[in-house]
Amino acid sequence: MRVVLVAGTTRTAEIPGISAAGADPSLVGHTPSADAEIIEYGQTVRSPVTPVSPTGCPTPAAITRAVRELTGFDVLVVDAGLSESTAAPTMDVGARPGRDIREAEPVPTAPGAFEAARQVGAALPDDELVIGETVPGGTTTALAVFRALGEAFPVSSSLPENPTGLKEDVVAEALDASGLSPGDAAHKPELATRYLGDPVLPVVAGLTVGALEADIDVTLGGGTQLLAAAALVRHAGAVGDLTLATTAYLADDVPELESAADELDVDLVVTDPGFETHPLDQYAAGEAKEGAGMGGALYLADHMGVLDDVEAATLDVLSRLDPQAVDGVEDGH
Amino acid sequence: MRVVLVAGTTRTAEIPGISAAGADPSLVGHTPSADAEIIEYGQTVRSPVTPVSPTGCPTPAAITRAVRELTGFDVLVVDAGLSESTAAPTMDVGARPGRDIREAEPVPTAPGAFEAARQVGAALPDDELVIGETVPGGTTTALAVFRALGEAFPVSSSLPENPTGLKEDVVAEALDASGLSPGDAAHKPELATRYLGDPVLPVVAGLTVGALEADIDVTLGGGTQLLAAAALVRHAGAVGDLTLATTAYLADDVPELESAADELDVDLVVTDPGFETHPLDQYAAGEAKEGAGMGGALYLADHMGVLDDVEAATLDVLSRLDPQAVDGVEDGH
Repeated sequence: MRVVLVAGTTRTAEIPGISAAGADPSLVGHTPSADAEIIEYGQTVRSPVTPVSPTGCPTPAAITRAVRELTGFDVLVVDAGLSESTAAPTMDVGARPGRDIREAEPVPTAPGAFEAARQVGAALPDDELVIGETVPGGTTTALAVFRALGEAFPVSSSLPENPTGLKEDVVAEALDASGLSPGDAAHKPELATRYLGDPVLPVVAGLTVGALEADIDVTLGGGTQLLAAAALVRHAGAVGDLTLATTAYLADDVPELESAADELDVDLVVTDPGFETHPLDQYAAGEAKEGAGMGGALYLADHMGVLDDVEAATLDVLSRLDPQAVDGVEDGH
Repeated sequence: MRVVLVAGTTRTAEIPGISAAGADPSLVGHTPSADAEIIEYGQTVRSPVTPVSPTGCPTPAAITRAVRELTGFDVLVVDAGLSESTAAPTMDVGARPGRDIREAEPVPTAPGAFEAARQVGAALPDDELVIGETVPGGTTTALAVFRALGEAFPVSSSLPENPTGLKEDVVAEALDASGLSPGDAAHKPELATRYLGDPVLPVVAGLTVGALEADIDVTLGGGTQLLAAAALVRHAGAVGDLTLATTAYLADDVPELESAADELDVDLVVTDPGFETHPLDQYAAGEAKEGAGMGGALYLADHMGVLDDVEAATLDVLSRLDPQAVDGVEDGH
């Protein structure tokens, strides 16, 4: 059992209003590098920031780390276009930071990274992989990829109010800039990710295709971005069992998730960690919802019988990350 | 507890007769990349070769991996100048492959990598680090560093017959090319590694200095290359407890090790895994001896009460790496 965190960036995240991954828009590029450190070490090491949303909701990486401390799973971080240094050890697949999808070719490294990831996915020694992502702005690029593939699925948001109108506008501009119409990249996953995606999606898809070729079970741990990866896998012609493991917060936000998963022949597993304590209660209020492998980690926690311990373990991680973040708990507020 | 493998290359290894790290000299650059994969995954993933000596002695990385399977320690691989791709996730400290020390400035990245490693060493969350190395040709660069620092210590060899005359000739040429005399780099560790070292030594020394600053216990797991790292740490002015954990095979080869360790105020721990079965009996015959954190891993195995299990666990690792390597066992030879 290995949890793979595919971590990267797209400048699409810099479009005002797109992403909640970072208290300050200028720090959003640090989020995936910091998430990787939190999952690897339980704290930041090189990263100058601990990711929180603008309202202070902690990064889902803290939950994934907590589950790691409870279960001891192995971690592999893949550099799928990080723009900031991380102290987490990373695997190189030749990916580079993605440009804004409103440019003509935002991810020139997509085909090479897909193939490098596919080879690794087929060569890993594991029986089972859980694959998650961290890429601010990733739901917008996922939406663009759905449209390029000709799929009508919706995407979620890390913000309580999903800026769907803004995302649709960005995607329309992105299609225009690439000279593509909806559906033009059907059955051409490398085209979809190169011209409309972020650098994370081709790596998740490549790892998954390779793992399925090698009869390794794959659980995609995440929300609509991982659904986009599943769509890419199916459009690449890969058959084989696929599971999408997500959080109850994400599933509540996207009622169409079950039918979309059905359509892609993907088993959907929804796990509710039942967070009630501040600051984790913000998840129930619609913040963050998913990311950094959280849904996959909760799925593992449930399978290993420690789901009820996740909230306390996460508060413990948060107390080490940033003592102020759990002050409300200590004060009894 | 975290085991850090500092992995890199120096073209000094290409000098005929210097290194046993690779059955074929043209493949020697793959050895550290493959060692990292073996410790991380228990098998090669991207590397085209499984490192063995010219006579078929398996890489010490297999022993380190076996101890990892027995004890479950965390691993951090640092890219200290790898020349070939590895599927093991690695931390970047800005190191690049080292040139032949007979060139004027073989490791221009030494000062920057030392500082980056120092910062990481001070920021890791661990109470204890065990630091090992994998760099073919590293005993020759270690010898050059000793001379540059003005230390008279000897070095070991991965070959049964240590080519000491050849190494002394190379070191004399290296000093000449850098315009340095023995002792010119005393108390200047960055000078010694930049002009006479390999890219691994400044990273090991930097990690150690940083960890000592942060009151993290450091065990250097290896032989005379790690003794050279200890010398660099002391020449950097760092005090604090340091342990050198090595194998009985290495200690038998270097009778001066104890007095050298004393002189550097380093505690020496020697562990004998008692290998008797082919192909591991080649260690007792003077092959390989140490490397890839082996001495540190054996020290951990002893502390955790599993030293007697290491031989069987290593044979199990080898059977997965290369079934032919343990044919002798299966045949009863």
